[in-house]
Amino acid sequence: MAGYGWITFLSDYGLEDNFVGVCHGVMARIAPHARVIDLSHAIQPQDVRHGATVLAQSVPFMPEAVHLAVVDPTVGTERGLVAVAAGGHTLVGPDNGLLLWAAERLGGIQRAHAIQNRSHRLEPVSRTFHGRDVLAPAAAHIAAGADLAELGPAVDPARLVRPTPLVSRVDDDRIHGHVLLVDHFGNIALNVSREELERVGVAIGDRVEVRIGGQTQRLPFEETFGSVPAGRLVLHEDSSRRLAVAVNQGRAAERFEARSGDPVVVARVAAE
Amino acid sequence: MAGYGWITFLSDYGLEDNFVGVCHGVMARIAPHARVIDLSHAIQPQDVRHGATVLAQSVPFMPEAVHLAVVDPTVGTERGLVAVAAGGHTLVGPDNGLLLWAAERLGGIQRAHAIQNRSHRLEPVSRTFHGRDVLAPAAAHIAAGADLAELGPAVDPARLVRPTPLVSRVDDDRIHGHVLLVDHFGNIALNVSREELERVGVAIGDRVEVRIGGQTQRLPFEETFGSVPAGRLVLHEDSSRRLAVAVNQGRAAERFEARSGDPVVVARVAAE
Amino acid sequence: MAGYGWITFLSDYGLEDNFVGVCHGVMARIAPHARVIDLSHAIQPQDVRHGATVLAQSVPFMPEAVHLAVVDPTVGTERGLVAVAAGGHTLVGPDNGLLLWAAERLGGIQRAHAIQNRSHRLEPVSRTFHGRDVLAPAAAHIAAGADLAELGPAVDPARLVRPTPLVSRVDDDRIHGHVLLVDHFGNIALNVSREELERVGVAIGDRVEVRIGGQTQRLPFEETFGSVPAGRLVLHEDSSRRLAVAVNQGRAAERFEARSGDPVVVARVAAE
Repeated sequence: MAGYGWITFLSDYGLEDNFVGVCHGVMARIAPHARVIDLSHAIQPQDVRHGATVLAQSVPFMPEAVHLAVVDPTVGTERGLVAVAAGGHTLVGPDNGLLLWAAERLGGIQRAHAIQNRSHRLEPVSRTFHGRDVLAPAAAHIAAGADLAELGPAVDPARLVRPTPLVSRVDDDRIHGHVLLVDHFGNIALNVSREELERVGVAIGDRVEVRIGGQTQRLPFEETFGSVPAGRLVLHEDSSRRLAVAVNQGRAAERFEARSGDPVVVARVAAE
Repeated sequence: MAGYGWITFLSDYGLEDNFVGVCHGVMARIAPHARVIDLSHAIQPQDVRHGATVLAQSVPFMPEAVHLAVVDPTVGTERGLVAVAAGGHTLVGPDNGLLLWAAERLGGIQRAHAIQNRSHRLEPVSRTFHGRDVLAPAAAHIAAGADLAELGPAVDPARLVRPTPLVSRVDDDRIHGHVLLVDHFGNIALNVSREELERVGVAIGDRVEVRIGGQTQRLPFEETFGSVPAGRLVLHEDSSRRLAVAVNQGRAAERFEARSGDPVVVARVAAE
Repeated sequence: MAGYGWITFLSDYGLEDNFVGVCHGVMARIAPHARVIDLSHAIQPQDVRHGATVLAQSVPFMPEAVHLAVVDPTVGTERGLVAVAAGGHTLVGPDNGLLLWAAERLGGIQRAHAIQNRSHRLEPVSRTFHGRDVLAPAAAHIAAGADLAELGPAVDPARLVRPTPLVSRVDDDRIHGHVLLVDHFGNIALNVSREELERVGVAIGDRVEVRIGGQTQRLPFEETFGSVPAGRLVLHEDSSRRLAVAVNQGRAAERFEARSGDPVVVARVAAE
């Protein structure tokens, strides 16, 4: 029995209720030695893609762990629950795509098992709180040394549900993408890469035109938001290596009224 | 000295300030071995009944622990502070009803002691932050092995203040109840039981009329919210075994503008 | 190597994103033995003075620890990062004043070192997330036993950037101050001391006139908010020994529409 000393926990449960605390208690009873790192409980409710994005972004910074993730819009229906081994880590959650990008970041899926064993659950299992009754117990049993095969039958990794990415495309001299997320500081992360920006001819110091929702603004592409004066808009590569619109010491999201999922168009501005 | 390896912590302190973190520090100094599970710090400010409801709902899922709970609208006045032993657990908080339903869920009060011993406090005790100065230290001393008798004199459990429940009643063919709480997903939990629903003749698959505040809606009673199409209202038994109004993959609270404490009427709809 | 068993963590990262969780993971990899107390992650974005105030208020209640603090409006520019030893504790953060009041509360700075050593960072260091890439690693290395000298060259404590306090002054029979912060309960903490109140002739039981923003109200100065009936305004000394305006069992901030930084005038009301 190997087990894990760490469990990480990501969900859309929020912190207004006792959902997160109750799952901590359930895990403490099964794997009292394991320590829990709360990655985020502010995934947009039932937004699997948002959860998959944040989880994939987080796992490279974690110690070897069981990663419990719960964003589960179809709880109570027939969707499966899975445990996935990847690069020395184990991911536990619904089979709805939530775990897959993280598994890829950890080196790819080695094996996957359905979570079905009644002896590793809280019985009776409720209809609506599988995080508490099935997933947290499974994560804790794995941390306590259970092999994935104890949880249920093997599943072909190729048959797991995949998340739907937000696509971006380069169309002539414009990049068409989306707002990936708006963070606590009002920074607007885009699903646009630096490579795409280079394909439309934009280099550091150039000006670009950015349209988000109905708003269009011109701003420079710089190495960091500190390269522009306080209060000014800037496009830069953020700490997750995605392009982001920011305001130095301000909130870009208020200039654009941007929300997660909004369409975005980025184009180079010819020297004026 | 037995003591406890776990302390759980519930309050109405919110997470905007350092109140919760400071109490963690106070406990770490007295009982560094103990690990703390934050149950919820989003109890509605000064709403003892809300705190008592969430605490009682949470403790059955916790390991044996000291349960520190602070919702204390009359801090700084003469209300007492108590430590209560119940089913191998110990509850610590104000004597205002906050702890009682949880103690009952844990098997009933075995003994109770007033918290008065100055040597187990932070001196000087402030007028307004007894969580930091008296209750967190008491919880930590108990986790470190102090007997309840060290904290102060025994109190007759029958003389502890009891919380006031939100009542529901069945009146002919209608159930009159209240909104117990609205959760992060917009689900509306009612203080109405499945037994009451059966008394007015409602079975799975039947339609009911639900009035909350000024709004009336017709919806089916189903085993789970996944039994109705996405976007549809449904009445179901939630993971705490209370009836709740939900929208599959949506927010019921927005359809009804429901708030905690609102009056609710539920009635069967004759087959149409 | 001494090291620390505890790390405390204060930031303006909020809890909507994974910033806090990711820093926890980074520290867990470097110093798995250390336990982390989250002091607050709701410092007003980029408000160094607010962070310095809350940190100084918190550290006296903490066990001996590394105190990691991140409020860093000029991340990505040339401002320095420092580790500061004070009274057996070590503070880690940007050199922008954030750490200084806390260091004074802990007994004053013993020595300070710049954080520059590349071997104690996550490489490549991002432009915008030095909390994750530089400061959390530095805090964790110190908890694991690194001497401050391993992080970089010594810095003269007298040359560290100091925070700018909100000033108050007594002008004849009036105190001119500011709102320091508004807490979760709507209490309004002022940068006004009891000594200043005594200088304008106000004693317990006297009435005062308080102007905050455009609003003026008359209220009594009492030992605690429980000294006035429910719903009534009161001026009292709070648990951090600052004067605060409160409403017993209510929210003072709504009576005054008060916000952090607002100017405040307090004066004695002659017996009516």
